[in-house]
Amino acid sequence: MGKVEKQYYSFAHPPQKLVLESGAELGPVTIAYETYGTLTKEKDNCILLTHAFSGDSHAAGYYREKGEEEKQGWWESMIGPGKGIDTDKYFIICPNILGSCMGSTGPGSVNPETDSPYALSFPMVTIRDMVDTQKTLLDHLGISQLHAVIGGSVGGMQVLQWCVQYPEMVRAAIPIATTMRHSALAIAFNEIARQSIMADPNWNKGSYYGQTRPDMGLAVARMVGHVTYLSDEAMRRKFGRRLQDKEIFSFGFNADFQIESYLRHQGNKFVNRFDANSVLYITKASDYFDVVDQMSESGPINNSQQDQIKYLIISYTSDWLYPTYQAKELIKTLKRTGQDVSSCEIEADCGHDAFLIPDDRLSSLIGGFLNGIA
Amino acid sequence: MGKVEKQYYSFAHPPQKLVLESGAELGPVTIAYETYGTLTKEKDNCILLTHAFSGDSHAAGYYREKGEEEKQGWWESMIGPGKGIDTDKYFIICPNILGSCMGSTGPGSVNPETDSPYALSFPMVTIRDMVDTQKTLLDHLGISQLHAVIGGSVGGMQVLQWCVQYPEMVRAAIPIATTMRHSALAIAFNEIARQSIMADPNWNKGSYYGQTRPDMGLAVARMVGHVTYLSDEAMRRKFGRRLQDKEIFSFGFNADFQIESYLRHQGNKFVNRFDANSVLYITKASDYFDVVDQMSESGPINNSQQDQIKYLIISYTSDWLYPTYQAKELIKTLKRTGQDVSSCEIEADCGHDAFLIPDDRLSSLIGGFLNGIA
Repeated sequence: MGKVEKQYYSFAHPPQKLVLESGAELGPVTIAYETYGTLTKEKDNCILLTHAFSGDSHAAGYYREKGEEEKQGWWESMIGPGKGIDTDKYFIICPNILGSCMGSTGPGSVNPETDSPYALSFPMVTIRDMVDTQKTLLDHLGISQLHAVIGGSVGGMQVLQWCVQYPEMVRAAIPIATTMRHSALAIAFNEIARQSIMADPNWNKGSYYGQTRPDMGLAVARMVGHVTYLSDEAMRRKFGRRLQDKEIFSFGFNADFQIESYLRHQGNKFVNRFDANSVLYITKASDYFDVVDQMSESGPINNSQQDQIKYLIISYTSDWLYPTYQAKELIKTLKRTGQDVSSCEIEADCGHDAFLIPDDRLSSLIGGFLNGIA
Repeated sequence: MGKVEKQYYSFAHPPQKLVLESGAELGPVTIAYETYGTLTKEKDNCILLTHAFSGDSHAAGYYREKGEEEKQGWWESMIGPGKGIDTDKYFIICPNILGSCMGSTGPGSVNPETDSPYALSFPMVTIRDMVDTQKTLLDHLGISQLHAVIGGSVGGMQVLQWCVQYPEMVRAAIPIATTMRHSALAIAFNEIARQSIMADPNWNKGSYYGQTRPDMGLAVARMVGHVTYLSDEAMRRKFGRRLQDKEIFSFGFNADFQIESYLRHQGNKFVNRFDANSVLYITKASDYFDVVDQMSESGPINNSQQDQIKYLIISYTSDWLYPTYQAKELIKTLKRTGQDVSSCEIEADCGHDAFLIPDDRLSSLIGGFLNGIA
């Protein structure tokens, strides 16, 4: 993939605001997105790619934002000519989620009614709301049928939400390293991240725009996140107890171990690219997410055989944020309602984040599945 | 057990300061401790009990600190007449660890040379240093032989340290839910806790005594700790996705889920009883701890058959802070050197903290083992 371009679609202009799941209204709404490949005249080769918690619309190719270095897409290994998601065949859309800070409307966006950033006056958004804005974008592009919806982690929640909310539009769904709903453990880690941000006095009840930002709290929140994305085994392999740059202990509070400096680095890197309030909103949206009841109902009673969605459910053995037993629950739920389900539990020691790491097995798995869809 | 009394032993008075593992000197040193049961005239029925990270010397019975409610010991279920650790037979000593804030000298103690709290001028202490101060306390009490050393988690590290540092004094050792050294994952969680404390501006590079304390950072640190002490399964059973006190989502940043308010409560409770700097020192001590080489060497070549320590190694299936594979490594290491090792992997879904929960299996296991020691 070569250079790509970020595009924007703005809608829900007042007074026709978007009504959110909570009942609150929001408008106008801008969704940033990128596309790769070419849409057929019949508009029947579209794949919607939904990104994870801290992801963005820049999934493939190279893109330079003003003043920044050229940046490679987060799934460059997967998307391109001849790759797992083949841009010679498919037209891929990757929208930035509502509530984020990478181009789409979120708590850091300016509220046109006050001319100031929303901050905590931004209404709570849910995974359903994110999917609704994606549907509006597709309507705008004249796309009424999706060859597939694909996404990992919080992106996988959006995939499942698409299947229960607009099943008639979805031919195939590939939820990866995800869950039908958060366990207490996943909620706990998200709550720790939120508390860490809100404990930073610079957070200032969310009103820090144009002032000192809650970088310390956000960095700790990111460190927590990073540990949940890795696995015990991957961390042992990658870091073990190796020391940073000395052969002896500092007997102080410097980063002695490589794992310590790695986490500090990840925390500090994150504060330069992400908005703390967006972390609050997106983690809460994923905690609220729960499609167990809806997935249990969307069986063949509701869908005719022809309308059935083809599922490919992918999980990783070492994912302890959304462990494989949760993928198995999803598979069981779908099979109980007679759905067309394929699944693959990939043996990998690198934890939840495994789907973001270039992997030929994943590419051929997804490529083969996409080609097999009628 | 009835009322108990906290006692104090002060030593290493300048200029005879204690030389620490780092080479730094510290003195005077006070160790707070409690005892239960009666020491025989032969002083041969002593059990040393070593406590975990945030524990204290108050392991059994009831004790009231000025202005506080009467408090039950943290292992009341285990220690007492006829219990697993039988006070009719044994004389139990439980010292508060060096570096803590529950009576023994730590960073919150007043440095007599400056008449101010040490804060970060307190030297780094290690598990070896903790054990050295316990040895000094035993010397003071005229105890030269330990029927057993027993402890869980960071207390288990002290048990292992005793076995490599003063093997001739130890007849039996019961390390519970512990490890020969921290994995990258365990270091990572400790580093997050430290960073959370140090991110709180009230931490003020450790000099907050007499001022506003870094309660926010400390609370988040404790929340992180609490998640590592539980297990996915226990959290699902105990909290699941149950809501706090409403039947609907708040669509805000209140604690919607019970797990959220539980963690907030644990965090807030902790700041009232523990010192943030002590968290920094004790977590670092446990990260530094590594007896793999020493345990591998202390084989029958060094110890005659009669001097052998009898080990009972206890681990929990759902402990993901020090998973059972780490207990197995310890068992393997000890067996390779011909040690006398018994072990038990207890099936329990409540995670690392399982050893603190009243459990008849654990009581009879420990009771039986202690009675079987010659």
